[in-house]
Amino acid sequence: MLGRINHIALAVPDIATASRAYHETLGAVVSAPQALPEHGVTVVFVELPNSKVELLEPLGDASPIAAFLAKNPDGGMHHICYEVADILAARNHLVATGARVLGNGEPKIGAHGKPVLFLHPKDFFGTLIELEQV
Amino acid sequence: MLGRINHIALAVPDIATASRAYHETLGAVVSAPQALPEHGVTVVFVELPNSKVELLEPLGDASPIAAFLAKNPDGGMHHICYEVADILAARNHLVATGARVLGNGEPKIGAHGKPVLFLHPKDFFGTLIELEQV
Repeated sequence: MLGRINHIALAVPDIATASRAYHETLGAVVSAPQALPEHGVTVVFVELPNSKVELLEPLGDASPIAAFLAKNPDGGMHHICYEVADILAARNHLVATGARVLGNGEPKIGAHGKPVLFLHPKDFFGTLIELEQV
Repeated sequence: MLGRINHIALAVPDIATASRAYHETLGAVVSAPQALPEHGVTVVFVELPNSKVELLEPLGDASPIAAFLAKNPDGGMHHICYEVADILAARNHLVATGARVLGNGEPKIGAHGKPVLFLHPKDFFGTLIELEQV
């Protein structure tokens, strides 16, 4: 079921500082910051040869990463996104095995314009997993 | 400087349970558990098409992930490993920019038999970064 690692998302308190560190200190190619108000984040893409890292800063009053940053003020590793070919088939298999899908269980359109689901971290050993249909 | 994402390491309290979940629930190809006593972990490799996830369970009395699991008993995302072409050049650049290398600053031979370094998570927004020379 799991396909490619689409991205690893890192929550950061200050995306300008983090972006500069990934570019200047770590020597990576980084995008310009993109505000995604409908997803409650500003994102910078760190392009690696085989996948990407996404730096996420909270945007607006209901950011999905606000609680994480309140608990981890320095920032930290927030989630891993895996690609799947058929998100409804993946969802149905997961639910049948007892795994919990966050929200109402229906895929939403994610920050890349594709259907996504998040799985409960308690069911996957403390790691928040996003599935994205590509 | 940063090359491929070599792996994402997830600390788990029970590697047999975690390995089964990645195989049966998430449908991924997983290796047999490998005990690495000199690194203080038992590892299962989750093979994805473009990179890999490593599930790590503490092994022995001085496991480098014991403190993390004491703080996060369910498990969680522990570090990201990026490949670099020249680890000494990378280290020298990082130190020159003020980033802190953990330990004595010299590369050690990591779990894959190659030179590795870890960077202080406080310098990278709460994310523990491993560099591996490949």
